[in-house]
Amino acid sequence: MKIGVIGLGYWGPNIVRNLISNKNVAKVVCCDSNPKRLESTKLRLPTVETVTDHKAILKDPSVVAVAVVTPVSSHYRLAKEALEAGKHVLIEKPMTDSVKTSEELIEIAERKKLTLMVDHTFVYTGAVKKIREIVDKGEVGDILYFDSVRVNLGLFQHDINVLWDLAPHDISIMDYVVGKEPEFVLAIGAKHYNDMEDMAYLTVGFRDNLVAHFHVNWLSPVKVRRILIGGSKKMVVFDDMEPSEKVKVYDKGVEINEEESVYQTLVQYRTGDMYAPQIEQTEALSLMCGDFVSSIIEGKKPLTDGCAGLKVVKILEASQRSLLNHNAVIKLK
Amino acid sequence: MKIGVIGLGYWGPNIVRNLISNKNVAKVVCCDSNPKRLESTKLRLPTVETVTDHKAILKDPSVVAVAVVTPVSSHYRLAKEALEAGKHVLIEKPMTDSVKTSEELIEIAERKKLTLMVDHTFVYTGAVKKIREIVDKGEVGDILYFDSVRVNLGLFQHDINVLWDLAPHDISIMDYVVGKEPEFVLAIGAKHYNDMEDMAYLTVGFRDNLVAHFHVNWLSPVKVRRILIGGSKKMVVFDDMEPSEKVKVYDKGVEINEEESVYQTLVQYRTGDMYAPQIEQTEALSLMCGDFVSSIIEGKKPLTDGCAGLKVVKILEASQRSLLNHNAVIKLK
Amino acid sequence: MKIGVIGLGYWGPNIVRNLISNKNVAKVVCCDSNPKRLESTKLRLPTVETVTDHKAILKDPSVVAVAVVTPVSSHYRLAKEALEAGKHVLIEKPMTDSVKTSEELIEIAERKKLTLMVDHTFVYTGAVKKIREIVDKGEVGDILYFDSVRVNLGLFQHDINVLWDLAPHDISIMDYVVGKEPEFVLAIGAKHYNDMEDMAYLTVGFRDNLVAHFHVNWLSPVKVRRILIGGSKKMVVFDDMEPSEKVKVYDKGVEINEEESVYQTLVQYRTGDMYAPQIEQTEALSLMCGDFVSSIIEGKKPLTDGCAGLKVVKILEASQRSLLNHNAVIKLK
Amino acid sequence: MKIGVIGLGYWGPNIVRNLISNKNVAKVVCCDSNPKRLESTKLRLPTVETVTDHKAILKDPSVVAVAVVTPVSSHYRLAKEALEAGKHVLIEKPMTDSVKTSEELIEIAERKKLTLMVDHTFVYTGAVKKIREIVDKGEVGDILYFDSVRVNLGLFQHDINVLWDLAPHDISIMDYVVGKEPEFVLAIGAKHYNDMEDMAYLTVGFRDNLVAHFHVNWLSPVKVRRILIGGSKKMVVFDDMEPSEKVKVYDKGVEINEEESVYQTLVQYRTGDMYAPQIEQTEALSLMCGDFVSSIIEGKKPLTDGCAGLKVVKILEASQRSLLNHNAVIKLK
Repeated sequence: MKIGVIGLGYWGPNIVRNLISNKNVAKVVCCDSNPKRLESTKLRLPTVETVTDHKAILKDPSVVAVAVVTPVSSHYRLAKEALEAGKHVLIEKPMTDSVKTSEELIEIAERKKLTLMVDHTFVYTGAVKKIREIVDKGEVGDILYFDSVRVNLGLFQHDINVLWDLAPHDISIMDYVVGKEPEFVLAIGAKHYNDMEDMAYLTVGFRDNLVAHFHVNWLSPVKVRRILIGGSKKMVVFDDMEPSEKVKVYDKGVEINEEESVYQTLVQYRTGDMYAPQIEQTEALSLMCGDFVSSIIEGKKPLTDGCAGLKVVKILEASQRSLLNHNAVIKLK
Repeated sequence: MKIGVIGLGYWGPNIVRNLISNKNVAKVVCCDSNPKRLESTKLRLPTVETVTDHKAILKDPSVVAVAVVTPVSSHYRLAKEALEAGKHVLIEKPMTDSVKTSEELIEIAERKKLTLMVDHTFVYTGAVKKIREIVDKGEVGDILYFDSVRVNLGLFQHDINVLWDLAPHDISIMDYVVGKEPEFVLAIGAKHYNDMEDMAYLTVGFRDNLVAHFHVNWLSPVKVRRILIGGSKKMVVFDDMEPSEKVKVYDKGVEINEEESVYQTLVQYRTGDMYAPQIEQTEALSLMCGDFVSSIIEGKKPLTDGCAGLKVVKILEASQRSLLNHNAVIKLK
Repeated sequence: MKIGVIGLGYWGPNIVRNLISNKNVAKVVCCDSNPKRLESTKLRLPTVETVTDHKAILKDPSVVAVAVVTPVSSHYRLAKEALEAGKHVLIEKPMTDSVKTSEELIEIAERKKLTLMVDHTFVYTGAVKKIREIVDKGEVGDILYFDSVRVNLGLFQHDINVLWDLAPHDISIMDYVVGKEPEFVLAIGAKHYNDMEDMAYLTVGFRDNLVAHFHVNWLSPVKVRRILIGGSKKMVVFDDMEPSEKVKVYDKGVEINEEESVYQTLVQYRTGDMYAPQIEQTEALSLMCGDFVSSIIEGKKPLTDGCAGLKVVKILEASQRSLLNHNAVIKLK
Repeated sequence: MKIGVIGLGYWGPNIVRNLISNKNVAKVVCCDSNPKRLESTKLRLPTVETVTDHKAILKDPSVVAVAVVTPVSSHYRLAKEALEAGKHVLIEKPMTDSVKTSEELIEIAERKKLTLMVDHTFVYTGAVKKIREIVDKGEVGDILYFDSVRVNLGLFQHDINVLWDLAPHDISIMDYVVGKEPEFVLAIGAKHYNDMEDMAYLTVGFRDNLVAHFHVNWLSPVKVRRILIGGSKKMVVFDDMEPSEKVKVYDKGVEINEEESVYQTLVQYRTGDMYAPQIEQTEALSLMCGDFVSSIIEGKKPLTDGCAGLKVVKILEASQRSLLNHNAVIKLK
């Protein structure tokens, strides 16, 4: 199988490297308008072909699939062109910059029976898969909240704010682990250096008092990557900064004993053992690329298909509206 | 000086112990309706007097001042009685359960020229005083954001939600460090075990894109007590769970270089040394009690006077309204 | 039961407080040559009797037992006097400053059928008891090594070096957990400020390649309290600086597969889950005092009896000889 | 300049990669007896030449220098051959397996005026260079001790014990930072799985009560890489597991005030600020390779020349003798 990769910025070369090492991929052809990037990629990965015009990739009948790893604003246009040229498509997160365009891509892919996938890499990490497994087994009980912090200094994006840049990681993890339909979105943000929010708090509300909350920030002196998941039975902490033991499961919780009086309740705390399950170490990006390739071959849905990508875009678009409307609560349909 | 302490629950005995060791306090008289608490306090602190009716304290002409360390709902009533009996008053945080009653207490105290103080203990810690000092020196530059997380398992309160219980600590620190007038409040919360929010996110907005945000939670498996302060020059992290080096000052930041093109800005990251200043170790509660006593003696305003208490209550009351109004933005006039 | 406590320095008042709260102890009488210490103890614990001459305690027929909490050099003399006066005796660690005197105390106690106990507090912590339980269940397999680090800035002792001061804690934990007879001792130390070692490394060797090693240091800028226990099946880390999860059990290890060739072995690493067992929270000192009291009442051996104390002194005395003999290996016959 | 690299095991490809990116290196030729390794290196670094017999490299007159990155037992033989063929030589640590052979290599290199260098990579890290700078400025005062812990699970070597494998890193750091002549060596080790020590404690003694101590261990469940340096003025902690702030400088120490009485000294603790200096981020291996290349060009001594390599081997050889002689103290003449 021959695969094209459009865009060799920060993330593109990683996609190229992982596609090359996939045993079902015979050839990778790369495209970037900047010849220096093509050169430097060719130096490290000498087996790649390079072109400067993505049209060359789309016209090449031997190219079966295309990865779009360009700035967000061009995702829709390039993915659409590729689908219409009959190529299976992998898009870097976030899928596109609007619900409308994401829906259109899904529609085209379905019509043309092509694989459409979004690179939500974190869903393929051993840690996140383990958390999902623990939740699925019922170990956590009902999920009460999902709290995520992803902050550090830097990597200001020029075309998107911090929510569109960082939150897709955590929203996709949340969607995969929680698996429920959100009801509303509320976003708070602040701009300090240019016309884009460089820090933001995003709330996603669900039925039954389940609340998800995300803190994303380009202006933090310390790097924090931590998700707390409170459950009625157990609680989970995913700390991605830990060199090992990234996931910890706490047998901690609260029990309410009703006493005689209607007015009184007795809260009891349960604290038991904690354990850190062993986590699969395979590089997530390699698994993601593998899922893309095998989805094409087997004609199956990838884990993070267009619909998964759309869910994230729906929340991001609503967050945008919340920001524009002075932190108003935005109902999702 | 003889001082009365009303309420010997969780916090009262700490106030008693610190008042007793103050060299200007000759005698402490305690009151609680539960005789067991009186006994157990007397056992550990044998020099205290005990009474079961607080009226006895208020009638005693030798009692100069009274500390109200009861559940929040009774703060207003007891403080008012005490002020009207001519006693100086120290109230446990939060000051009262409404802006109206807090304002009334301030008015009475002013009229009767009595000291009125709220126990915002954290303002007296070496760490918070050091942060204020660093900010005052201009080392941080303009404050861009104030982000606080105070979560752990437990200590559900029965009469107040998690915001009224935990957030006063962080709001009082924020007010002391930031020193600006807030513009609006927005709160998000969830109730899982009874009719009170057991987790909440509070946003306090200021002019000029300064945003303060607070996460308080009784349902976290891990204990986090961390404040991030982003500044235009330096950034500060206050991690109260660190056994030492609680305050770290980072010479990190962002600089925007305008390039020729109006459409392009170049963000540059500055990362320099970090330092952890030495922190004064004196027990904060002892300093707070000392400030109360010396304010009475010298007729000066304590650091955390009624007005400081009122500011916190204003934000809490607005948060309550935000929760009742589906997370609406509540303007602070 | 009435108990006497001789010595109200740093540790004495803690012993007094815990004896007082023991339900089988009716009265505590304290002795110190410094009247200020007596006063300050009486202020906080008003039910204690105080005397300035320990002879008064020994002569008092109502005193059943005596705790010796004085500098090490006086342990032997005071404990001997007490035993000869027919009192049960609890001695602060280390038991005495020589094997000979420790043995003599054991002999007197046995002859007079009195309880003789040494305050190895750590053996009574929930963490150490849990580790022993895990080892006893066979979960760890054969213990391969015991590595302990106890370093921080400060608390120079004037009468004993850092080994006699800090190592008794870890040697007593090691003896309790490992439960084997040591074969030899080797010590390395350095003196920087006066004529006493302020840092030292102690090795205790056992049969079968089991080695225990202790780093104790008064000159470390950071506080470390960590014990690693390597086992053939699992490994244990006890980190006493962790606010929670002090004990972690790792399902990690090494397996050797013999290959065809005699010259080749294949090492394989096993890494599984880690868990942090729930630890009992009762104050260790209270359990230790309780064991002393119930040993007297029931005529049973306490957990940390004279023989346990002697084992620690044997290692310390050998370490002294090793230091004097230029780090020579000292066989324990 | 054309450089040959002999040995493409674990470390060799890193040397190749860094030599290739050096602007003064025109060509790299690699040698390994295993053709698979040659292939896999060529795949990633297509510009390298490959040969299976190192003689081909030594005979090639265009090859100016050779890096020996093979198992320790062959270092001497290969380096000698290379020097005698007139090539400058870089040897992977440890230099050779005996003092005698290391000395011979130095002698040959001097005679033939060739650069001889040992790859002590850590000496080129930003962290270690910063520590040396701090020590050189006198900020630390007199160094009182150097304590190093390098433990984790794994990577058993088959031809050398844990001291020869791991300790060269820390001994070379110590030599670079402390810069004094050691007086004696004492080693303690244990073998659990085959005939090689898998854990060991190494002491290196200096004049004036300066002691260096190293704990190396292949059997630890947790990864620790920490060096404590105690100084008479300040203390330094180098924690290589920290993602940032690897070096911390503590303004902590001890002061001895002599009181009237000769028998009494008063120890006082000084605790001031801590700071974490900014550390240069350039890859150490690239700087080391750069030093090798520029030493050849400029005819200067590299930082980690043959003499630096010999110092490490002297300590390792003495540690071997100490282990064979039941932990005897081995004097370094």
